[in-house]
Amino acid sequence: MATHRFRPTRYYNVIGTAEPVLRVASGDTLIADTIDASGLDAREMVVAERPNPMTGPFFIEGAEPGDTLAVRIDRLTPSRATGWTYSPLAVTVLDPAAIPDRPATERAVWNIDQGAGTVRLQEPPKGLEKFAPPLQPMIGCFGVAPARGQALSTATSAQNGGNMDYRLFAPGTTAWFPVSVAGALFYLGDGHACQGDGEITGTGIETSFEMQVTLTVLKRTIIWPRGETDRDIFTIGNARPLDQALQHATTEMQRWLGEDYGLAPRAASHLMGQVVRYDVGNVFNPAYTVACRIAKSWLAKP
Amino acid sequence: MATHRFRPTRYYNVIGTAEPVLRVASGDTLIADTIDASGLDAREMVVAERPNPMTGPFFIEGAEPGDTLAVRIDRLTPSRATGWTYSPLAVTVLDPAAIPDRPATERAVWNIDQGAGTVRLQEPPKGLEKFAPPLQPMIGCFGVAPARGQALSTATSAQNGGNMDYRLFAPGTTAWFPVSVAGALFYLGDGHACQGDGEITGTGIETSFEMQVTLTVLKRTIIWPRGETDRDIFTIGNARPLDQALQHATTEMQRWLGEDYGLAPRAASHLMGQVVRYDVGNVFNPAYTVACRIAKSWLAKP
Amino acid sequence: MATHRFRPTRYYNVIGTAEPVLRVASGDTLIADTIDASGLDAREMVVAERPNPMTGPFFIEGAEPGDTLAVRIDRLTPSRATGWTYSPLAVTVLDPAAIPDRPATERAVWNIDQGAGTVRLQEPPKGLEKFAPPLQPMIGCFGVAPARGQALSTATSAQNGGNMDYRLFAPGTTAWFPVSVAGALFYLGDGHACQGDGEITGTGIETSFEMQVTLTVLKRTIIWPRGETDRDIFTIGNARPLDQALQHATTEMQRWLGEDYGLAPRAASHLMGQVVRYDVGNVFNPAYTVACRIAKSWLAKP
Amino acid sequence: MATHRFRPTRYYNVIGTAEPVLRVASGDTLIADTIDASGLDAREMVVAERPNPMTGPFFIEGAEPGDTLAVRIDRLTPSRATGWTYSPLAVTVLDPAAIPDRPATERAVWNIDQGAGTVRLQEPPKGLEKFAPPLQPMIGCFGVAPARGQALSTATSAQNGGNMDYRLFAPGTTAWFPVSVAGALFYLGDGHACQGDGEITGTGIETSFEMQVTLTVLKRTIIWPRGETDRDIFTIGNARPLDQALQHATTEMQRWLGEDYGLAPRAASHLMGQVVRYDVGNVFNPAYTVACRIAKSWLAKP
Repeated sequence: MATHRFRPTRYYNVIGTAEPVLRVASGDTLIADTIDASGLDAREMVVAERPNPMTGPFFIEGAEPGDTLAVRIDRLTPSRATGWTYSPLAVTVLDPAAIPDRPATERAVWNIDQGAGTVRLQEPPKGLEKFAPPLQPMIGCFGVAPARGQALSTATSAQNGGNMDYRLFAPGTTAWFPVSVAGALFYLGDGHACQGDGEITGTGIETSFEMQVTLTVLKRTIIWPRGETDRDIFTIGNARPLDQALQHATTEMQRWLGEDYGLAPRAASHLMGQVVRYDVGNVFNPAYTVACRIAKSWLAKP
Repeated sequence: MATHRFRPTRYYNVIGTAEPVLRVASGDTLIADTIDASGLDAREMVVAERPNPMTGPFFIEGAEPGDTLAVRIDRLTPSRATGWTYSPLAVTVLDPAAIPDRPATERAVWNIDQGAGTVRLQEPPKGLEKFAPPLQPMIGCFGVAPARGQALSTATSAQNGGNMDYRLFAPGTTAWFPVSVAGALFYLGDGHACQGDGEITGTGIETSFEMQVTLTVLKRTIIWPRGETDRDIFTIGNARPLDQALQHATTEMQRWLGEDYGLAPRAASHLMGQVVRYDVGNVFNPAYTVACRIAKSWLAKP
Repeated sequence: MATHRFRPTRYYNVIGTAEPVLRVASGDTLIADTIDASGLDAREMVVAERPNPMTGPFFIEGAEPGDTLAVRIDRLTPSRATGWTYSPLAVTVLDPAAIPDRPATERAVWNIDQGAGTVRLQEPPKGLEKFAPPLQPMIGCFGVAPARGQALSTATSAQNGGNMDYRLFAPGTTAWFPVSVAGALFYLGDGHACQGDGEITGTGIETSFEMQVTLTVLKRTIIWPRGETDRDIFTIGNARPLDQALQHATTEMQRWLGEDYGLAPRAASHLMGQVVRYDVGNVFNPAYTVACRIAKSWLAKP
Repeated sequence: MATHRFRPTRYYNVIGTAEPVLRVASGDTLIADTIDASGLDAREMVVAERPNPMTGPFFIEGAEPGDTLAVRIDRLTPSRATGWTYSPLAVTVLDPAAIPDRPATERAVWNIDQGAGTVRLQEPPKGLEKFAPPLQPMIGCFGVAPARGQALSTATSAQNGGNMDYRLFAPGTTAWFPVSVAGALFYLGDGHACQGDGEITGTGIETSFEMQVTLTVLKRTIIWPRGETDRDIFTIGNARPLDQALQHATTEMQRWLGEDYGLAPRAASHLMGQVVRYDVGNVFNPAYTVACRIAKSWLAKP
């Protein structure tokens, strides 16, 4: 179980089948630098183009089409002391009739205080002078090469992952992606220091990171991304509108409950009907992201 | 501040401008019996037709169009020992391609154990023998008369409330509805002993209740329903698809943060962008319900 | 087969179960005045409130729940020389990002020239000095009382018809509505002198009319409105988003082809797959309208 | 103005930046063989994989990012005597509740009679014994390389074109695509012998073709595909749900009327509001296609 330290020199704006930058074994740990959504690195230098320039791709030995790549998020450490967001609310989350009254889009800078574990606006508007939400790092965009030679923009997401902007892709979570090419070809980037549900300003607090992940090949097949935290399991659907994203996530959860927990569809529906939770990852990108989540306390492996 | 005990003898399947069954003062408390979604009362006798027969309407003195009716949910006590759900998952939450493999719709009965505070399937399928989610009562359908003489089916919801099926409409929550007619004309019913997000089997655990609520007229105007729990404030959007419901809820929250918390739209977006939570009330009824929720710990009245 | 001349003195903003203004026999013809969407009558006096004040309701003898009311549109004659539209394009038909650049909403007046058979803007903007589209009258809003005591705003539409704003509801067309109450309770109004697909400025050319229709009860059951012109048959779905409206219309057409033309679902799909046409009635109202249309030349009654 | 005859030996399932198979000058004509959606060539041999294997890409000299590629469809000649469709109706066009009753998906074969100008099912079901819709060839999937190194599946469509399945992409039509890479990189394939609106069985009548197109570089910029027939101009939006596709198409038409016809947004809305037509290209693929269409008789170049 080796640990690899990788420092990228080029970046990708699509998740496709580019030449791997590193080959790792299943079970290896990767520590890699990532830059922010607009291409700013740890020194705040522009080193790549928008959107969401990716570090990678990484070739995981033994991964074959039909397998699953498990990505345990070990650690996400911001590599600079500031991040940025857009304001105001995105047009996708406002009543269309309210859009004309919306102020113009601006960029705001936040200080990231790793000691205090908080983020703060450098120039808070009236009413937010004391607003200091927690530093809660997450990965905005990561995933594996899609099937059939596709190369998908890092602005969007699909069955292979991508720009899902879901706040539970955070340290302690293990994400699963369906492998479509030999070696899986894993990409990561677009870290956020904090983000609410929906990425509703069009950004989290965008900054550069040192990310540590552990990559393991599972000899099983999934259709949509899945994940596990210390409390929950969840499935991901990426599509527009939200309804369709929710359908993908729900159907994948029903499959998972059958495969691993011995619940036939009717039994799965009785459980899900009472305890399911839905999270909106993002309602901003070309594909929206919905998670279907269940607390592990309700589940027992047969 | 009087307390009224009301025992209905007829029920409504629309929320409109029927003759009031009782007149109460602002600040009064109402204890009323409600029957389940299919018209079964506490004795399991069918006393009304589907869908969601309502108790009411109640006339609140002093309520005028443009006001807001605050409904504090004091207590929701199941009035019988069983409830029922449908299975399997509804067609609205499945990938269309998965629908043909879905089993036929069936009704299942759950035992409600008020002592233990749990609900249990009477005939649990394989894997759910020990499944006992908590008794968490909620109101599925309540609201006030809509504007302009409309009478809206209790199957659906709109700006006046209705069949929102949101699990935070639970004891301790205060719900706000926009008043459109003199007296507000408040209706309630369709209690659930438990329900996950989305009402994804098409039901919660449907049963009859004794519901206690306190009704207060506020001389202020809102556009969509709002609510407050001990931890959160939230706004409600009712529409299809989920995207539009989310837009209504988000726009209403932006208004609320401006009205009561002194946050201009850009400031509101900075706060919401980092701490907002979205809940899916239901993704089953003709109008879906999305809540936009913010923890009160992030808010300070100016 | 009597002909009734009706001059309304009051109007309705909901389609519900109001007291009938006139009782007619099946097969009778009705000539009635209607006023425009904002309540302006033939003298341009405001005689009712928005939205879409309706003339009616008319009780058709013999109509029972489960029947169908056939409404042949015999003649639509504008009763004044002008109509009005809004501009610019509605927010529902623009990319959200384009909405902020949209000019403010204004009302424009059109001259209706019944001799020439054209309509013309009174003050045409640059480039439209010669623009004179044809006078093509249509009914924007008509239908029958919905089921279960509902009273639905004339701003929207449902299975019972309502504000569909579909340009083929024009002279020569017969529309069918599903009857839910004794007597059907037929309402009509909101005439347009002209309108493109989608009602994309939020209006057709709104004016008052003398409308002549012939009302016939059919002892058969339909789920969604249907229609027939000299060339086509069509079915109507009313819902949001457009996808769902299209699903309702398509499913209703599949039923019709089975009922009247002897085509099993697979056969219906072969025919529809090659020759179906979809029209967007409106993409502006709370419920959008999509028509599924087939030329009668492809159809033979068995 | 050369004419090139191209016979492909390999095919692509993504539209991206593959090595060009031929370089042509602006204004040149291309005659190329295409195979059907499932990879069957003129001899009915499987020579490529699904979905929609493309012929190309063709490099058009002088085309630069920001330009527009005009593709005049000169001729589409089926290269075999049969084509195939799926039945029954796709799940995307049915009420979800009607999906369980849908028969299983099957393939049917149609005879293509170029002499008679018709297509006929080889084994017509009851009621379709005489059904012979016209041979109306169209291109299902064509377009140019997308921006930023993306490679998009030929199952879907985007701003660069792709699998739009719109029946007006037929002989006599000129289609315009926005160029994102040097040489444009044009692909074509997926010809249909006939297809109704929406591609509602998931296919047109799929067959192999000899396609003749003339390719011209325009030094102007568009955002979404555009087209022109002898009677109409149209714009294309590709997205889900239909609402969003319609918004893209409508906004692009508003731009076009401004650029070429001197109509400011308000004037454009007056014209579009009365005469616009919407067509549903497909309501089956991952991105749906809506066309916004206007008869040229209403337009005058200033």
